[in-house]
Amino acid sequence: MLQRILNEDVREGSLRLIYPDGVTRRFGSGSPEAVLEVADPKAVPRVVSDPEFMLGQTYMEGGWSTPDLRALLEVLLRNFAGPRNHRRNRFGRWLTPLLRPLQQWNRRAASRRNVAHHYDLDETLFRRFLDSDLQYSCAYWPRRELTLEQAQAAKRAHIRRKLCLRPGQRVLDIGCGWGGLAIELAEQAGAQVVGLTLSGEQARVARQRVRERGLEGQVEIRLEDYRDVPETFDRIVSVGMFEHVGTRYYDTYFRSVHEHLAPDGVALIHTIGRVTPPGVTNPWIRRYIFPGGYIPAMSEVMAAVERQRLASADVEVLRLHYAYTLAEWFRRFQRVRGAVAEEKGERFCRMWEFYLAVSEAAFHWRGLVVFQLQLAHEQTAMPLTRDYLYRPPVLGPTVEPSRTAASA
Amino acid sequence: MLQRILNEDVREGSLRLIYPDGVTRRFGSGSPEAVLEVADPKAVPRVVSDPEFMLGQTYMEGGWSTPDLRALLEVLLRNFAGPRNHRRNRFGRWLTPLLRPLQQWNRRAASRRNVAHHYDLDETLFRRFLDSDLQYSCAYWPRRELTLEQAQAAKRAHIRRKLCLRPGQRVLDIGCGWGGLAIELAEQAGAQVVGLTLSGEQARVARQRVRERGLEGQVEIRLEDYRDVPETFDRIVSVGMFEHVGTRYYDTYFRSVHEHLAPDGVALIHTIGRVTPPGVTNPWIRRYIFPGGYIPAMSEVMAAVERQRLASADVEVLRLHYAYTLAEWFRRFQRVRGAVAEEKGERFCRMWEFYLAVSEAAFHWRGLVVFQLQLAHEQTAMPLTRDYLYRPPVLGPTVEPSRTAASA
Repeated sequence: MLQRILNEDVREGSLRLIYPDGVTRRFGSGSPEAVLEVADPKAVPRVVSDPEFMLGQTYMEGGWSTPDLRALLEVLLRNFAGPRNHRRNRFGRWLTPLLRPLQQWNRRAASRRNVAHHYDLDETLFRRFLDSDLQYSCAYWPRRELTLEQAQAAKRAHIRRKLCLRPGQRVLDIGCGWGGLAIELAEQAGAQVVGLTLSGEQARVARQRVRERGLEGQVEIRLEDYRDVPETFDRIVSVGMFEHVGTRYYDTYFRSVHEHLAPDGVALIHTIGRVTPPGVTNPWIRRYIFPGGYIPAMSEVMAAVERQRLASADVEVLRLHYAYTLAEWFRRFQRVRGAVAEEKGERFCRMWEFYLAVSEAAFHWRGLVVFQLQLAHEQTAMPLTRDYLYRPPVLGPTVEPSRTAASA
Repeated sequence: MLQRILNEDVREGSLRLIYPDGVTRRFGSGSPEAVLEVADPKAVPRVVSDPEFMLGQTYMEGGWSTPDLRALLEVLLRNFAGPRNHRRNRFGRWLTPLLRPLQQWNRRAASRRNVAHHYDLDETLFRRFLDSDLQYSCAYWPRRELTLEQAQAAKRAHIRRKLCLRPGQRVLDIGCGWGGLAIELAEQAGAQVVGLTLSGEQARVARQRVRERGLEGQVEIRLEDYRDVPETFDRIVSVGMFEHVGTRYYDTYFRSVHEHLAPDGVALIHTIGRVTPPGVTNPWIRRYIFPGGYIPAMSEVMAAVERQRLASADVEVLRLHYAYTLAEWFRRFQRVRGAVAEEKGERFCRMWEFYLAVSEAAFHWRGLVVFQLQLAHEQTAMPLTRDYLYRPPVLGPTVEPSRTAASA
């Protein structure tokens, strides 16, 4: 049965299947040439019966291996899961509207648990594969050949411009991570920043970084839910946090943005999105990586934005940028894989590298993108046209510090 | 009753109500200072009972006058119809989902009738208030002080850039109007353009302009429905036509775009939109100006884009630009009002100036905007970032012909 499926469906690139007894079958032709070495024959029927979950699960368990995980996932996702052959996917489409709300019941307590699951992992793990500023979200690549550090600096600068910040303005950063963007907005734009996180580890590290830079008077890191903030702000920024909100809470989220944003305020929401219709979260990702997480379609986000009476001013769709970012994270993770395996074990390493590689493939081949939504109350809060975002070009301070500082 | 409403609700600007017997009442204070002179006392209860329709209707009939129609509509829309006080509006909200499909039953025959109603009006009327290129859609104003001609040229150039055109590529222009954009894409970018219109008048004028410029080999104007086009194209552009499609046909429309767009193609849809949730078309506009028309919320458009498997690459929201355009159209119309009144009568003039002024006010105060949706099949069809749209700045050929030509 597997062979029939593969014979029929491998049309782009090729796949070599190597069984434990050495028997080899080849499907399709051309590049990339992917290889899947079966270690446990029972893994094959498990993947066929429930590929969305079992591909990752059997990889974690060592049921199969490959010399190039990225190439293998490229071939699998290009041939079996692209937006163009979506209609072939018979599984679970009618379940979507039932499953989604159940998967994202993110009340305050659940949100804390979900965040702890991922972000309370030891900071040293993240230091091993992220850039030096610990930016754990999509970088901005004006040119593919930038370093990850440069591309993350360009991302911070691009977001800073979209906020149209003036010195002394108060900024709320919902989901501040390890504090990199909050520090940048304080240092480069003279802003007063309140950063929110639900991760104790992130708050500890962010506060330490704020102290090291002498920014205690400008940056306050709070271990607080966005639903509990009392003040209003001139600007609101939220990068890579909306993915954890859950569709049930989209209205709550944008009502918070509406209520906490000053009348002439500007908000910038940076989130992973899908160009395909609303769906469900991949079950393997939900179980092991992001419980409670959901990647929205633009129609879902905008419906909530409209209901909560926020005016959208610009929606940038960053295509491929996260694929480049994840490719770099994967490469850096591979360099330190031995050390991570010693600390956390082989199973953890396999889980982590599968997460990075399958995410990269999804950004390339499965219609995942990043939305940057610029929102406001007033039509006059932003300049008339978007030229101000591109004068001078954003390259990030690592490349041309004087230029970037001038744009603050 | 009217006075109670006005006393309570005029909070921004002021309104002076002058009755036929000379009695004057003033509501609110400050600027703008609007004046409504009642000529027919029966007009007042009619407006109060059904303001959405009767304000325009009674104005057309001469039931009231004003020295400054734009100021009056600004005060009325700021105080009674802004997105912020939407919840006060008790009328007809539950009717919305029932009314919308009925109002937009735009089968082919109905579409032709609806188009004829507006666009088959004598071309000379449009020549009297549009720019010299007959651009009957929102201009692009990098600076407010541009002339209308410059701002329309900047719009054409901005759209041309978003299409990422290469010489010789085939372009479909759905709703080509009097042919201005089709001619520009042929002359400035070396494209082969097929322009579609359902208006016999527009087709006649557009073909004549194409002949005058010697572009018969490059531009073909067809009197054809977008649902009947047989070929595929490298690029699809549609400016100010989507407003006539109707929600019932959004999937048909984007399926057409999907099917007629080459695999590496780029499409650019320019349409009026609302930042408020889906609603219904103003009944006066529907009756007198645009039968079958509907202004979509972004959530509605994007849901259809997602279902039809088109990937959105960029959504620009042009705020205020159409208000500036309409202000200029209104000003030019006032200059020739005497001549139009002689030809078409006072009632027509009042209808036309109310349409222009109420539209301007809606773009300023009622959450109307313009969406420019850039769509594609492939994530790689466009450059990685949007810098290419802003290098060098778009000013339009009237300002700097050499620069604009270089950007083609």
